[in-house]
Amino acid sequence: MTHAPVVDVLAGKYAVGETVTVKGWVRTRRDSKAGLSFIALHDGSCFDPVQVIALNSLSNYEEVQRLTTGCSVSVEATVKESQGKGQALELEAESVEVLGWVENPDTYPMAAKRHSIEYLREYAHLRPRTNVIGAVTRVRNCLSQAIHRFFHEHGYFWISTPVITASDTEGAGEMFRVSTLDMMNLPRTDKGDIDYKEDFFGKETYLTVSGQLNVETYCTAMSKVYTFGPTFRAENSNTSRHLAEFWMIEPEVAFAELADVAQLSEDMLKYVCKAVLEERADDMAFFEQRINKDVVSRLEKLVSSDFVRMDYTDAIEILQQSGKSFEFPVEWGVDLSSEHERYLAEEHVGAPIIMQNYPKDIKAFYMRLNDDNKTVAAMDVLAPGIGEIIGGSQREERLDVFDARLEEMGLSKEDYAWYRDLRRYGTVPHAGFGLGFERLVAYVTGMQNVRDVIPFPRTPGSASF
Amino acid sequence: MTHAPVVDVLAGKYAVGETVTVKGWVRTRRDSKAGLSFIALHDGSCFDPVQVIALNSLSNYEEVQRLTTGCSVSVEATVKESQGKGQALELEAESVEVLGWVENPDTYPMAAKRHSIEYLREYAHLRPRTNVIGAVTRVRNCLSQAIHRFFHEHGYFWISTPVITASDTEGAGEMFRVSTLDMMNLPRTDKGDIDYKEDFFGKETYLTVSGQLNVETYCTAMSKVYTFGPTFRAENSNTSRHLAEFWMIEPEVAFAELADVAQLSEDMLKYVCKAVLEERADDMAFFEQRINKDVVSRLEKLVSSDFVRMDYTDAIEILQQSGKSFEFPVEWGVDLSSEHERYLAEEHVGAPIIMQNYPKDIKAFYMRLNDDNKTVAAMDVLAPGIGEIIGGSQREERLDVFDARLEEMGLSKEDYAWYRDLRRYGTVPHAGFGLGFERLVAYVTGMQNVRDVIPFPRTPGSASF
Repeated sequence: MTHAPVVDVLAGKYAVGETVTVKGWVRTRRDSKAGLSFIALHDGSCFDPVQVIALNSLSNYEEVQRLTTGCSVSVEATVKESQGKGQALELEAESVEVLGWVENPDTYPMAAKRHSIEYLREYAHLRPRTNVIGAVTRVRNCLSQAIHRFFHEHGYFWISTPVITASDTEGAGEMFRVSTLDMMNLPRTDKGDIDYKEDFFGKETYLTVSGQLNVETYCTAMSKVYTFGPTFRAENSNTSRHLAEFWMIEPEVAFAELADVAQLSEDMLKYVCKAVLEERADDMAFFEQRINKDVVSRLEKLVSSDFVRMDYTDAIEILQQSGKSFEFPVEWGVDLSSEHERYLAEEHVGAPIIMQNYPKDIKAFYMRLNDDNKTVAAMDVLAPGIGEIIGGSQREERLDVFDARLEEMGLSKEDYAWYRDLRRYGTVPHAGFGLGFERLVAYVTGMQNVRDVIPFPRTPGSASF
Repeated sequence: MTHAPVVDVLAGKYAVGETVTVKGWVRTRRDSKAGLSFIALHDGSCFDPVQVIALNSLSNYEEVQRLTTGCSVSVEATVKESQGKGQALELEAESVEVLGWVENPDTYPMAAKRHSIEYLREYAHLRPRTNVIGAVTRVRNCLSQAIHRFFHEHGYFWISTPVITASDTEGAGEMFRVSTLDMMNLPRTDKGDIDYKEDFFGKETYLTVSGQLNVETYCTAMSKVYTFGPTFRAENSNTSRHLAEFWMIEPEVAFAELADVAQLSEDMLKYVCKAVLEERADDMAFFEQRINKDVVSRLEKLVSSDFVRMDYTDAIEILQQSGKSFEFPVEWGVDLSSEHERYLAEEHVGAPIIMQNYPKDIKAFYMRLNDDNKTVAAMDVLAPGIGEIIGGSQREERLDVFDARLEEMGLSKEDYAWYRDLRRYGTVPHAGFGLGFERLVAYVTGMQNVRDVIPFPRTPGSASF
């Protein structure tokens, strides 16, 4: 491949007067009465297409005049200074080769007009050709690369925790069953139950809801680790914030307390948002103009502001004294709802909040009990404009306290035998958090629905493509 | 966290005489008659532990003498030049705080002795504490970071293709069913079949066997893309090369022909192997010494040698004229088996081979038909010492040829409607390949079995942890 990416042409990597070959798809074509055509050519490498000027002296100018949105072309051209406003450089075609036509342009689903975001979802295989999904794709990639880079630079090891699991990690959430049993001919035990001994793994298996418990095993050997992989929830939630299949990032840090991972979450969010501002200014300008006018300024603010640490107990007091009437009543012991979180982050503080030390009864069994015996060392990061974006905790590393908590919650020691081993053999304080990747991409781009920031969304009733 | 990673201490980032805190686990403890103890302390940050000298003047020296393999400690110490051979630096403890004891050291599963690799598999939650699995973990991380970096630097976008799918990508391979139906109470249609309309996604769904068809949709919009995610095969294969759940890397390149992705595969393999040689010399020295004495030299050779391009048809001739007697007979049209591949790569050429243009009848339906009408533009990368490590092809982008091939293979156009759309609307030449990540890690480290290079292997009858 010796052709030039559009991003390189627009960045001036080729001198004026130089001949280059570009390959891509027609976004629009406009014919001038002066006997030439303007082709906006995109190849996905950056937000902007490059303008190609095709003169009627081209041997196949008749073909050029039939080009429509979505046609693929290979263009040999000379780099010129642009006469119009907008881009500094444009291309004057020496030849235009049509690689692929669009079958019946009138019915091409991605024809050059405004499509609703819901319409685009129906065409998940073609929507990356649009401005908006192209921009989402580049920002999503930028964020994922920045996340790996951040952890790598800070001495973390990426651990691939299993997708198929025989254990229900958090004791919470509905799970998808994974099986190869013949559904029309299920094997039965003597008692008439399904005989999962006959299944592929010899037992009942599910899709994981979190890699945390698994990654703790690597944390208590490698010290600093993280996961970045798909996780699953079989919840019948048809909201703009829920997917049945989504990607999660879960760092886990040995010899760390809650304050350490609170700082880690702040450092990581700032690092990845800074990367987007620096590397994807083109796409962010589009989101600012078309999707949400605050999307750049709130990122800049996040990067430059200090995240405020706040105790749950103090937050309850602030909410009670706010004079606001909330839909859900506020009292110590309740889980904060979205309206509470947004009031605190957007109105009361005006900056991201790291909320800490929640009542133990509303949090998971593995979180470390505080000395007050009422709260656990849990934290949530609440960002203005979206609410909770990260949830984490210090883990209970004391075997006796952990066992008491298991008993209190009616969970069996046997089911957590290997997790208990980490506390039996050289236990260490450790802590971590989980970040839902699609919620982060939605927050950064301003997209309203997580279904539009993952290539092929899986939701109740929908697993197309 | 203000403690110092062991890797930084050993690298001399702290001056002799400086006081540092290190935290980690005891690998071994040795007492000297001179009234002091030597503790080898590891924290996973590098292969070597750091040597800590604990004098009997420590207030809790009695505790120090009870330390066993696996105990966790926090040590405040002064950096010293080492008197012994081996490492240049060591630590002299000012204080040793025991964070976690090992319950009954005599039965600690990871006690300091040689364990068989099969034994370690039984303790997948504790085995990262061993030298060998620690080294595998760091090399695996190094490879994954290098893969993301390589593609990012070359203008590729990471695309997360779906794990849950309603289509059987390659029309090959047994798949895992994903379902939330109540197995004891399956809904039935009028005809008595399972009524998958009642299932979570409203239809039958499976775990993906490849992201290729999905990622082609992004390739034909963004030009250069790749996947890096888990894939699944429900095959009852109990071999050292098969996992039911494994990670795959699948780049897909628009405006590319077979020769382009052949070059890409060579460039990528060299890039990531070079990264391991440069960044993980410590772990590689261990693998060379303990696992496979050729492991470093073959990597060096791969990085410096030119991969040889060879046509399948020529390979058949070479094999026939080799004078070797193979277990599986050689004639044009057969799939090459491992013995053939290894003979060619190891004995005949002595370098990696990119084998190209296979008979169409032994390859998948989406591969591009060559002008001879007999072969397709497919390729495999065969490496000395392991055989096939990459498989790829140019994809059939001509709608009429593709449709004819579908019909020839008895596949329905309707099932591939969205895949055909990519050929109906602005089709472009494109090509890509797949790399099984665990096979790469096994090749690089010399580990014999892919079960030992993934944290929690999933194989027939086994989904523990």
